[in-house]
Amino acid sequence: MSEQGNSTTNGKTAEGKRIMDRLEAGAGERVTNRLAELDPDLPRLITDYAFADVVGRPGLDLKTREMLTVAALTAMGTAQGQLEFHIRGALNVGVAKEELLEVIIQMAVYAGIPACMNGITAYRSALAAQDYDG
Amino acid sequence: MSEQGNSTTNGKTAEGKRIMDRLEAGAGERVTNRLAELDPDLPRLITDYAFADVVGRPGLDLKTREMLTVAALTAMGTAQGQLEFHIRGALNVGVAKEELLEVIIQMAVYAGIPACMNGITAYRSALAAQDYDG
Amino acid sequence: MSEQGNSTTNGKTAEGKRIMDRLEAGAGERVTNRLAELDPDLPRLITDYAFADVVGRPGLDLKTREMLTVAALTAMGTAQGQLEFHIRGALNVGVAKEELLEVIIQMAVYAGIPACMNGITAYRSALAAQDYDG
Amino acid sequence: MSEQGNSTTNGKTAEGKRIMDRLEAGAGERVTNRLAELDPDLPRLITDYAFADVVGRPGLDLKTREMLTVAALTAMGTAQGQLEFHIRGALNVGVAKEELLEVIIQMAVYAGIPACMNGITAYRSALAAQDYDG
Amino acid sequence: MSEQGNSTTNGKTAEGKRIMDRLEAGAGERVTNRLAELDPDLPRLITDYAFADVVGRPGLDLKTREMLTVAALTAMGTAQGQLEFHIRGALNVGVAKEELLEVIIQMAVYAGIPACMNGITAYRSALAAQDYDG
Amino acid sequence: MSEQGNSTTNGKTAEGKRIMDRLEAGAGERVTNRLAELDPDLPRLITDYAFADVVGRPGLDLKTREMLTVAALTAMGTAQGQLEFHIRGALNVGVAKEELLEVIIQMAVYAGIPACMNGITAYRSALAAQDYDG
Repeated sequence: MSEQGNSTTNGKTAEGKRIMDRLEAGAGERVTNRLAELDPDLPRLITDYAFADVVGRPGLDLKTREMLTVAALTAMGTAQGQLEFHIRGALNVGVAKEELLEVIIQMAVYAGIPACMNGITAYRSALAAQDYDG
Repeated sequence: MSEQGNSTTNGKTAEGKRIMDRLEAGAGERVTNRLAELDPDLPRLITDYAFADVVGRPGLDLKTREMLTVAALTAMGTAQGQLEFHIRGALNVGVAKEELLEVIIQMAVYAGIPACMNGITAYRSALAAQDYDG
Repeated sequence: MSEQGNSTTNGKTAEGKRIMDRLEAGAGERVTNRLAELDPDLPRLITDYAFADVVGRPGLDLKTREMLTVAALTAMGTAQGQLEFHIRGALNVGVAKEELLEVIIQMAVYAGIPACMNGITAYRSALAAQDYDG
Repeated sequence: MSEQGNSTTNGKTAEGKRIMDRLEAGAGERVTNRLAELDPDLPRLITDYAFADVVGRPGLDLKTREMLTVAALTAMGTAQGQLEFHIRGALNVGVAKEELLEVIIQMAVYAGIPACMNGITAYRSALAAQDYDG
Repeated sequence: MSEQGNSTTNGKTAEGKRIMDRLEAGAGERVTNRLAELDPDLPRLITDYAFADVVGRPGLDLKTREMLTVAALTAMGTAQGQLEFHIRGALNVGVAKEELLEVIIQMAVYAGIPACMNGITAYRSALAAQDYDG
Repeated sequence: MSEQGNSTTNGKTAEGKRIMDRLEAGAGERVTNRLAELDPDLPRLITDYAFADVVGRPGLDLKTREMLTVAALTAMGTAQGQLEFHIRGALNVGVAKEELLEVIIQMAVYAGIPACMNGITAYRSALAAQDYDG
């Protein structure tokens, strides 16, 4: 991160923030500001790498990618807060709440019932937080 | 599994086998026969529950479900053989190999580079096994 | 879950609820009602599959099964709330609190000290919640 | 491990080896010799701590403890070789093979179908290795 | 733990408590008293085994060992409270807060961004708790 | 990865390869060539992001970073091949084999004995592969 730390508003960073903002309005600025408090190069780990370079790859649309992320985080079971964020993000990029429930239920098969139940808890919280009308 | 063990060819079992066969020709019979050697009710755990009752739910198509399964198994990193099976299965139900590579690359963000690299190893094996021409 | 969704009070569902109620009075009704709010077929994932078809298999008694569940959830470390539920459930089906402590301590060997310590935290909470007199 | 490294045949070490030998004839000597090649204090991590101090606690019998270990290792899914060892060990201390299959099947509920299937693979290998007639 | 349970203040126990106290003043007494409420032999699992016998081994200094522990707990993602404890402990034995941040950021590569982000949350909490001026 | 895919030999990529080559002579070229077979932007995930941007950060030396990686991969238990690679890499950047053994033994406390034993297996393989004379 050393070389480009002084240009945190380059094209790739902007692209990453745009994707984050599609998931949650203002997320790009909010998340990067929080990380910049700790280290000036840290935000680029999220914006440039995670979002612009990986999630922003053209091979799959963002809606599909968010479903995959919800599946993975439900199965792993170690990042409940981020699972909630990505459930809200998935809703915001056009995944239907019924589809998200399917994603989470399917994880019962591959990661067990407790992982599915924790996913359902995150799903309820995410829907409540958004006052989502679907 | 006690009550219906004597009717392992009921409608739900047949439905589960049909889904398994879509993933890999003959998988329904092969997998259930192997499990039946151990316990007569065990195959239904796979056919009736995993495939008919969960994967067979109407809310998502099988192509999307296989992408979710590949995402989850790549992220979890504890079932390499089954990851290969589901990569082959995904190809067989219409996921493009380029899409599968995207699924696996995305997991680098959420589960780390080693999980992604192990996913790529499974991906190469699955493609080699199928002599897949895409 | 599609075919039998309209008969959620069939024999298998009732059997699953009976097992759940042995773990915690009223759990069968409470858990299934919560899940039915989301999807009419979802409760059967718990009642029919998890409890009737697997936990209800005759090969092991419920006391032993709950000890195994406490071991697994302590080792996995991703479902603290459900670990507490099953510690209370284990007490309710006759596992002595001293036996449960042994289960959790043993996990230090196989899953590490932090997993054991988190298990002990769940154990204390479960005992406090029940005002258990052992 | 520093203080007692020179007395690796003390009472606790002997007790640990006795327990290991109950799981598999000769395991105490074999495992500790292998570890002693690397560091003279290392074997005591297994004999004194894992087996004498934890598994050797009086609160549960060895048969129950091995079932718990098989449950935990099946659920965790990261130690296939050791899972096989403990399945053989469980058989050797009196767990019936049918009981072990129940333990592994139950893990499908709590850790997912792939964890259960990998447990079944270990179970088949362990039984084949022992030419177990049960 | 059976044989030496009556001498919980032996040399090894004292050594373990000394190491714990270096991580956090009073931790040795506080943690062991809490565990002794449950079982008289339980504290030795922490003092004698974890701290005296393993962490107290001479081959690496305590500062390095705490960095390794922070790496492992960040990567595992199942023991947030203990991660915070060891971040505070690392600071107390001389790891610079900038070094700890590096440890946690590095885990993004090996365990994924969510594990890193949860590590950063623990890092912020640990620093806030200590009113650390570094 | 879209924007800079056509300049895979830029400064950051070169820096990442240099770090990889310090871990294992030729690794930079070998690993990136293998990944480029699949997708032209994929190698940068490893060279630019993982190695140049994260592992290459100035806050910790490479020797310390490799010890952290060995700790994390041992604790996670899902990437045995990569654990071996990083044990060899750690030896190549100056970690003593005795220090690596300490790292792995310490993981017994935090991730359990099986994780430690699998780490020891990787350690033996890595040492055998290098014909390391230490």
